[in-house]
Amino acid sequence: MRHTISILVDNEFGVLSRVAGLFSGRGFNIESLCVAETLDPKVSRMTIVTRGDDQIIEQITKQLNKLVNIIKVYDLTAEEHIERELAMIKVNVSEKDRAEVLSIVDIFRAKIVDVSPKTYTIEMTGDNEKVNAMVELLKPFGIKEIAKTGKIAIARSPKAVK
Amino acid sequence: MRHTISILVDNEFGVLSRVAGLFSGRGFNIESLCVAETLDPKVSRMTIVTRGDDQIIEQITKQLNKLVNIIKVYDLTAEEHIERELAMIKVNVSEKDRAEVLSIVDIFRAKIVDVSPKTYTIEMTGDNEKVNAMVELLKPFGIKEIAKTGKIAIARSPKAVK
Repeated sequence: MRHTISILVDNEFGVLSRVAGLFSGRGFNIESLCVAETLDPKVSRMTIVTRGDDQIIEQITKQLNKLVNIIKVYDLTAEEHIERELAMIKVNVSEKDRAEVLSIVDIFRAKIVDVSPKTYTIEMTGDNEKVNAMVELLKPFGIKEIAKTGKIAIARSPKAVK
Repeated sequence: MRHTISILVDNEFGVLSRVAGLFSGRGFNIESLCVAETLDPKVSRMTIVTRGDDQIIEQITKQLNKLVNIIKVYDLTAEEHIERELAMIKVNVSEKDRAEVLSIVDIFRAKIVDVSPKTYTIEMTGDNEKVNAMVELLKPFGIKEIAKTGKIAIARSPKAVK
């Protein structure tokens, strides 16, 4: 099963390496990971998406809770939460394709953030399924490059994960 | 100086831990890191933002290039590139504050993605400065929670980092 884990950590070097090591030490691949500062620059939040046996993931979260520099671990999987990721996609556009690419951008409420004579760079946000759906529609035009953030998640209001 | 490094890696367990270890082993903190799959599910892209001495970062990128499972390392710092991050912000809104919060959301072309009687959850994208500017404006209302992806970057068209 796919799990989304949100972790508050001290913003110090070595923490990311230890957290990642805990997953890889058990043979778990991290599908996506984001880490960035919170409002308090001494604290960072990591959002990790991983896939695997529920019991082993429970063990990992327990071990994470014991690590120095880990403030709090939440497995958001079973909770109602909103998830989003950001993608930037550079796609080839010949003159005849422009109108069609623009209409895809419109439908997905995406934005064009850079233009060259032969390419558009598109920015879009959504859940994983929405981002993948747009990528599939753009593939036939030729995707030159893609950068994705991976998923962040926030519990549904009014509950706060902090 | 702040550096933005884009790394293509094999999507295998242990790679993230080794990359993070290379930075922390030299006492470098990672300000933000995103890792997610590319179009090829066997390949992931990491975007790392770190701050430090240019020469040492050059050494680190050289060492990264030598690691197994690292396909390619690009320091985008000196190149023209577009950078974006995604933030979700859960902010308190009393009845009298709603109009003001909504106008901030409009100005920043952000979106409200969840509502409860006492909170709005806002989604926004932009460069780090834009995200921070919005966060500063929302602080007086009371931010309950924030989740940020950290930065992704893509070279200006038509050049592709791949």
